[in-house]
Amino acid sequence: MLVVVALGGNALLRRGEPLTAENQHRNVRIAAEALAPIALEHDLVISHGNGPQVGLLALQGAAYKPDEAYPLDILDAETEGMIGYMIEQELGNLLPGERRCATLLTQIEVDPQDPAFKDPTKPIGPVYSKEDALRLAGERGWTIAPDGELYRRVVPSPRPKSIFELGVIELLISQGIIVICAGGGGIPTVRLEEGRLIGVEAVIDKDLASSLLARELKADAFIMLTDVDAIWKEWGEPHAKAIRRISPENLHGIPFAAGSMRPKVEAAIEFVEATGGIAGIGRMEDAEAILRGEAGTVIARDVSDVAFWD
Amino acid sequence: MLVVVALGGNALLRRGEPLTAENQHRNVRIAAEALAPIALEHDLVISHGNGPQVGLLALQGAAYKPDEAYPLDILDAETEGMIGYMIEQELGNLLPGERRCATLLTQIEVDPQDPAFKDPTKPIGPVYSKEDALRLAGERGWTIAPDGELYRRVVPSPRPKSIFELGVIELLISQGIIVICAGGGGIPTVRLEEGRLIGVEAVIDKDLASSLLARELKADAFIMLTDVDAIWKEWGEPHAKAIRRISPENLHGIPFAAGSMRPKVEAAIEFVEATGGIAGIGRMEDAEAILRGEAGTVIARDVSDVAFWD
Repeated sequence: MLVVVALGGNALLRRGEPLTAENQHRNVRIAAEALAPIALEHDLVISHGNGPQVGLLALQGAAYKPDEAYPLDILDAETEGMIGYMIEQELGNLLPGERRCATLLTQIEVDPQDPAFKDPTKPIGPVYSKEDALRLAGERGWTIAPDGELYRRVVPSPRPKSIFELGVIELLISQGIIVICAGGGGIPTVRLEEGRLIGVEAVIDKDLASSLLARELKADAFIMLTDVDAIWKEWGEPHAKAIRRISPENLHGIPFAAGSMRPKVEAAIEFVEATGGIAGIGRMEDAEAILRGEAGTVIARDVSDVAFWD
Repeated sequence: MLVVVALGGNALLRRGEPLTAENQHRNVRIAAEALAPIALEHDLVISHGNGPQVGLLALQGAAYKPDEAYPLDILDAETEGMIGYMIEQELGNLLPGERRCATLLTQIEVDPQDPAFKDPTKPIGPVYSKEDALRLAGERGWTIAPDGELYRRVVPSPRPKSIFELGVIELLISQGIIVICAGGGGIPTVRLEEGRLIGVEAVIDKDLASSLLARELKADAFIMLTDVDAIWKEWGEPHAKAIRRISPENLHGIPFAAGSMRPKVEAAIEFVEATGGIAGIGRMEDAEAILRGEAGTVIARDVSDVAFWD
């Protein structure tokens, strides 16, 4: 069985923790412990978020020489290297030597006509006062948007269209190699009319990119791991209930606010409708249990009625 | 024929140029133009330096929060992502679609008993006044060393012992995929007695790591590209002569000052003596000509007398 697992940025950094190398290594080790049992049983592809890390690199660059700060495609490539390295090393430490891992840099094509380029919505980096935000918008050509009482930079989040390294990923899987790829949603690129591929200032949603990856690989299961235990119906309400099993059709009918759960739900539906495989959403430490249907929310075609956890 | 090419950090950034994304893309494009004809004829593995890039990341981290600055293994991983991405994209733009590239994160094992750990010699990052250097050494546990009138941080440069991803690299080559790997000399790691692999604060010489890679892959040719046109005998003297062809035995007899040429010469000798393949050293734009013996210095077993360029 081929399993694609997407590790949420929040699963790699507990909320409020400083983004030190030690903290990240410790959290990646916890993730590796959750994934090792899956790696021993199944073919495995791992993608991961990078929100806090890209935010930090952007801050570091701005603190040094703002005019020479790197664009988002390069920052994503840096985090693919950094986070991929930690996952490969920590997971490798838990597996027998013959179970090899490979971390592969991943470029993903987006459509230059994607409406997201005209309507940037993805917040990135720190919050600023209105005054600072307006100044930075003028100096650097940023789009800014309110975030509570303050302001943040927002960037386009176009939909992923195709994954350039797909053939290489398939080859590695076919040889029993665990592949770490598509970190941070992959490096966003567009094909110019003349044929050249170039990077763009955008961030592809990690769950949508991972869903595309799982679909193209025809994975049997696609698991998104985060810091929430399941999809909840009427989240925050007195009658809120955690969903145990649901079909894509029934999931379509449940409203979700924008934020981190909506792209996960969309990513799950796209995967299950296209492949007939199962999708799962839940906590990092429940990874193996989710795959067995014993934790989290499982989305599958053959579920007639919605089942809830007690 | 399998060719391993090591791109020097100086070949990716002209001396004195600011380390902007634009400058690096332009230089990587020049490198890609030099490598594309080789990629069309031969199997190709590309490694690269990262000195200026690691220096910049270290500066950016220090400018933001010095106490949370990342160790060198993580910085190397970031640059493998960043530089690998630019090489993969620019080279991919010059090749037909079916000639695929893969950028692979590379961990390299070093010996924790390597004498380099007791005698750090590799300068990294900016120069400091003696006062600042002494303060930083105290605060961060750095070793510092004089650099002209000023001081720099120096770190251990242990010898590379083995390349963890070697089997994956071989697999990719066997399928006709161009592999970009071992950037910046690879991520330095040591195996603890308990068996765990961890990263270490060190920098592996890029040419020695590339030589190990070329030997382990049993490459036919190993080319180191830099901003010098050849190995020169009596460099800087009135009778200096550029070497055209030389055997490892004769090369042993020529003295080289420490610096960037000595590790290249050592890397070339190690490769040729171990494999019987040919090694080449010269300028980026001469890559293909060096492979044909029409530029640069070629080191090969079967050369009886040293041949010089006119």
